Amino acid sequence: MYTLPKFVEFREEGPREGFQIESKTYPLKERARLVDALSETGVKRIQVGSFVSPRAVPSMADAEALFAAITPRRGVQYTAVWLNEQGFRRAAKTPRVYLYGKMVVYTTDAFARKNNNCSAAELKKRQLDMLPLFDEMGVPLEEAYILTAFGCNFEGPVPVEAVTDGVRFVADTCTERGKPLPQIVLADTMGWANPEQIKRVIHAVRETVPEARVGLHLHDTRGLGPANFYAALQMGVDLFDSCVGGLGGCPFAAFKDPRAAGNICTEDMVFLCEELGIETGIDLEKMIEAARIAEQIFQRPLPGKIMHSGSLKAFR
Amino acid sequence: MYTLPKFVEFREEGPREGFQIESKTYPLKERARLVDALSETGVKRIQVGSFVSPRAVPSMADAEALFAAITPRRGVQYTAVWLNEQGFRRAAKTPRVYLYGKMVVYTTDAFARKNNNCSAAELKKRQLDMLPLFDEMGVPLEEAYILTAFGCNFEGPVPVEAVTDGVRFVADTCTERGKPLPQIVLADTMGWANPEQIKRVIHAVRETVPEARVGLHLHDTRGLGPANFYAALQMGVDLFDSCVGGLGGCPFAAFKDPRAAGNICTEDMVFLCEELGIETGIDLEKMIEAARIAEQIFQRPLPGKIMHSGSLKAFR
Repeated sequence: MYTLPKFVEFREEGPREGFQIESKTYPLKERARLVDALSETGVKRIQVGSFVSPRAVPSMADAEALFAAITPRRGVQYTAVWLNEQGFRRAAKTPRVYLYGKMVVYTTDAFARKNNNCSAAELKKRQLDMLPLFDEMGVPLEEAYILTAFGCNFEGPVPVEAVTDGVRFVADTCTERGKPLPQIVLADTMGWANPEQIKRVIHAVRETVPEARVGLHLHDTRGLGPANFYAALQMGVDLFDSCVGGLGGCPFAAFKDPRAAGNICTEDMVFLCEELGIETGIDLEKMIEAARIAEQIFQRPLPGKIMHSGSLKAFR
Repeated sequence: MYTLPKFVEFREEGPREGFQIESKTYPLKERARLVDALSETGVKRIQVGSFVSPRAVPSMADAEALFAAITPRRGVQYTAVWLNEQGFRRAAKTPRVYLYGKMVVYTTDAFARKNNNCSAAELKKRQLDMLPLFDEMGVPLEEAYILTAFGCNFEGPVPVEAVTDGVRFVADTCTERGKPLPQIVLADTMGWANPEQIKRVIHAVRETVPEARVGLHLHDTRGLGPANFYAALQMGVDLFDSCVGGLGGCPFAAFKDPRAAGNICTEDMVFLCEELGIETGIDLEKMIEAARIAEQIFQRPLPGKIMHSGSLKAFR
């Protein structure tokens, strides 16, 4: 039996997930303002942008300029996404980027090809090639992502064995190289997960690597995000990626867009934790304020709920 | 220990909850079209409108005309809301209205006064006065609603004893009059509930009236609706009110509006049930279609998720 965690760590990804699927590039100053507002909330890690091909993701082309435009706050890690050595070296050269080692494992070949133009097996090999680079830069291997861990629009349902195989690949790699096991983050990249599946898959991963901390990257594509989040809490999961305002893209594009849209909403899930007596280190009212800033930037209603209704603070 | 139910009964309330908070009255033909689309989905009960004061709720003034405009489908119960004898007699005179006996119990005085202009105690007395009317009309007492069972914007947190007291009032009334206990529906009228509280309150109600079927009327005001729904499933609850498209009002008005907005979304929760292997009798694709009709009528994005992303049917 598992119990609810006492503390949940949120990692804010709105500045990347929210903007990357936009065809439009929003003013640098406004994006920096959002990052700065988030840094005031108590959240300890903010994913600011991506060092990827500007052709593939035009809205992330100015990642260096965005990092330069923020007002860094002590104690906050400003992170970024990269997909290969070139991106990693760009990130490493950019001041203020919190650099760390990461492995990304694909459970399905089709999504690997869509996202990287090569097979899942080839991508595994490339992950291994990155490891000496982390050593060279002196950064620890902090985490491993298992993508499309709950289902894939291109290949359909993902068997739990595909997830545990991925986890075992990470564990074996670390054992062979004498590295400590990183935390394992299971990503519901395309919004397939349901709460009972969350429990089954987490249980299977824990059976495979009992010593690993397990986190989740959840999307709310089909409305089950909060239920999945709660199911994970019931499994004692204490690490979540989330997006302020429920950012993650236009819900109307989601079913045509392989980068499935709408992550779980940071402030709504912080509220859930608070109501359950779980600490987060985040000031809910400040996170709601950041969500309202995001809404001003996007100039359309965002999916977050509590940013519109207000919290219960005024009523108690 | 409880287990997930095998079948969940949804009662569709979008045509009432969705339109009642609108200042505008939408064309009768369009509202009838939505009701008719819903009746094709397999849902067995649709709340079409309210027989209440046209001054208080102008958008519901033409309830009789709306009932006349629908194309009734065999096996579907078309229901309505009323708050007093006058409303009940109007409903009784209207063809196609499925009439049944209902008690409504307020847990807080302040909300009773807001909604009915009299105390919760006075409202209890009025509920008793309605019972002979049900007998006169030959309709059974089918259900009792406990309003603001999880919290109240006017009085703050609602203790579980206020809920069990309300339930006991219903049970005692039935015992005294030799009537079978109706089903008990707990309403999170203002969106205060969290999943652990859902479990605690349902447990307490079951301790009070072990023989009663317990249902839930949930709002998604603060983003916890799907988590609360899942928590209730874990308690074996098999009866839910919900709204197609997540209707229930403009989320931007919610925190200023005592009629707290945004019910749980029928099609998203039907999808959740399906993913858990729970039957609903509802055709998910048809319910998504009805949600899209609702969106056409309101001409703004509704909060429902799967109506925008699409179900997983195409990917399996």
